[in-house]
Amino acid sequence: MNKGRLEAFSDGVIAIIITIMVLELKVQQGEDLEALHPVWPAFLSYVLSFVYVGIYWSNHHHLFHAVKQVSGPILWANLHLLFWMSLIPFVTAWMGENHFAPWPVALYGGVMLMAGFAYYILAHVLVAFHGKDSVLAKALGRDFKTILSLALYTTAIPLAFVKNWIACGLYVLVAVMWLVPDRRIEKALSEKSTS
Amino acid sequence: MNKGRLEAFSDGVIAIIITIMVLELKVQQGEDLEALHPVWPAFLSYVLSFVYVGIYWSNHHHLFHAVKQVSGPILWANLHLLFWMSLIPFVTAWMGENHFAPWPVALYGGVMLMAGFAYYILAHVLVAFHGKDSVLAKALGRDFKTILSLALYTTAIPLAFVKNWIACGLYVLVAVMWLVPDRRIEKALSEKSTS
Amino acid sequence: MNKGRLEAFSDGVIAIIITIMVLELKVQQGEDLEALHPVWPAFLSYVLSFVYVGIYWSNHHHLFHAVKQVSGPILWANLHLLFWMSLIPFVTAWMGENHFAPWPVALYGGVMLMAGFAYYILAHVLVAFHGKDSVLAKALGRDFKTILSLALYTTAIPLAFVKNWIACGLYVLVAVMWLVPDRRIEKALSEKSTS
Amino acid sequence: MNKGRLEAFSDGVIAIIITIMVLELKVQQGEDLEALHPVWPAFLSYVLSFVYVGIYWSNHHHLFHAVKQVSGPILWANLHLLFWMSLIPFVTAWMGENHFAPWPVALYGGVMLMAGFAYYILAHVLVAFHGKDSVLAKALGRDFKTILSLALYTTAIPLAFVKNWIACGLYVLVAVMWLVPDRRIEKALSEKSTS
Repeated sequence: MNKGRLEAFSDGVIAIIITIMVLELKVQQGEDLEALHPVWPAFLSYVLSFVYVGIYWSNHHHLFHAVKQVSGPILWANLHLLFWMSLIPFVTAWMGENHFAPWPVALYGGVMLMAGFAYYILAHVLVAFHGKDSVLAKALGRDFKTILSLALYTTAIPLAFVKNWIACGLYVLVAVMWLVPDRRIEKALSEKSTS
Repeated sequence: MNKGRLEAFSDGVIAIIITIMVLELKVQQGEDLEALHPVWPAFLSYVLSFVYVGIYWSNHHHLFHAVKQVSGPILWANLHLLFWMSLIPFVTAWMGENHFAPWPVALYGGVMLMAGFAYYILAHVLVAFHGKDSVLAKALGRDFKTILSLALYTTAIPLAFVKNWIACGLYVLVAVMWLVPDRRIEKALSEKSTS
Repeated sequence: MNKGRLEAFSDGVIAIIITIMVLELKVQQGEDLEALHPVWPAFLSYVLSFVYVGIYWSNHHHLFHAVKQVSGPILWANLHLLFWMSLIPFVTAWMGENHFAPWPVALYGGVMLMAGFAYYILAHVLVAFHGKDSVLAKALGRDFKTILSLALYTTAIPLAFVKNWIACGLYVLVAVMWLVPDRRIEKALSEKSTS
Repeated sequence: MNKGRLEAFSDGVIAIIITIMVLELKVQQGEDLEALHPVWPAFLSYVLSFVYVGIYWSNHHHLFHAVKQVSGPILWANLHLLFWMSLIPFVTAWMGENHFAPWPVALYGGVMLMAGFAYYILAHVLVAFHGKDSVLAKALGRDFKTILSLALYTTAIPLAFVKNWIACGLYVLVAVMWLVPDRRIEKALSEKSTS
């Protein structure tokens, strides 16, 4: 089985997730700037989630770049990731609407934790399928960034009930950490082609 | 006519169906955990339908893997399947909102029955087009799983009025049955390539 | 410029149009069969539009099958078609919600007339680009079906104010007429390959 | 890294943006022509934004036609463009609902300015990656049209508070200016292939 349709389907789902979040920016009654005032928290929440979904798409792109074949378990590990990502619009809206209150912020972290965990599983299912000596396996290495993200989410969730801005700050930190593009796979590939 | 656009269009429609269902998880007023309480039935309903749509996509992927060419009747058998699948978000929302009441549960089964039947027709139109000796025909064989699913839906629908959890249990059973990936087509293909 | 992205973008837009219409089937309060009663006109309206959009996708598929290259004017003739098609969910919802009242039925016909006209323009821009002796030009021939559809829509619009079911009957007639797949292009292509 | 998935993902996001705007055309209660009366400003607003998004897609298509490879920064410059484009449905709805009042018209211009600026950045990141002597760099040249558009948006935003129709007129002017297809890249490519 080739990877073309898995990539196309994932692109479709991720494109819809990233775009329907904007539907939660409800148009306000009123035609002056004050009408936009209540939209601010929803907008900030949208920006954070847009960046997260962009990171997932970008990493998914890098990850499957080194993939040759897909199997049944890979299809389902990928659907599992898409399931948790599909809940991002829901938690984004809840967090924005309630001005980053503790419970919504904690739930946001919970969904991000599950999505990060699903990505981790997907990467490992791919490595198991391609073998421990594959380019993919070497490229992923010990996968520090993913594990660090999971640790940061786990730390942020209880902190949401202490100070919500600490939890939000940790979410931003994870996003910034990933915005530095992941060159491991590219590097391993180019090393292989030069050796 | 090649199958590329049919696959791309189906991927697009299925990606939208699987994603817009989440729009029915209405964000609650209120910022504590209690606000999430009424969302639970809708969430369970969403999980079940996500798995179903994932199964359809995965089976569609396997089915068309063995297809070489498409014809007018195949296009329409595929659109017929997509039509019934497009009603899944509607019945999912109705079932979740009414806490798995008898009529919504029965209608959910009815739409699943029609979608399963449409899949059965699609598979048979494909076999008729490729010939009884094609890899596809051999791979599908007597198609036990599809027929068994139709029988289980048909059993579940009247049972929804006796005990709604029996019907829901049967829907879960069908899903679990299909989550075991369908290796028939892969097997037939690999047998051919080794012979 | 190759046609790949134009096909992919059109598939995406048409997939979204055909799927978001189902969002207009509003879930009713109430858990028995009576709650579904007011959904019937919206459902019938949805079925008609699903078939229409399916026909457009199928014809678009056939049309571009014979296309080799695209140009700026072709991109815009295609976007023009997609614009009128994008209004189909709006008129479908208005017609369904008002139980096929005269004005909504007439407007539905008006949008269908414009979409049909846009398809006619697209086909002719394609022929102009590929030359009068191209396979495409021969395949389209005098394009009876498109012109007949435009005539039927034009007849149906005023009749909507006399008897709404006559107009609706004409819309169904056009759909049935197109459900017979368009073999002209396939035929011309196969004639060429055998000569 | 090849450009296939970047194009597919962008096509998906743009297709959704251009289509979900129509969901803001709220179906009116009432079955006669008067019920449509309040929809007019939203409709005009929709037409303008449809044309703008169509122009972006068409230009994106032309731009990436000359691209061979993509990198991390290109992925993110592209996501940055998609972010500002994703706000178009929001500002379109706000402008339409408030009958082109000053603040909504100004905000519409602001989002268009940011989207135009993001496109400018994307084009320059692409040129930096492909080299100053690449076909792409020559084709883009000094990029008059993009800079002129940015200047026109900047002029229109304050003018929205003087006379809203002047600002809207300038937006229409920008759209008309781009509807003339961009032949620079096509020209440079054909010059290269003939030399």
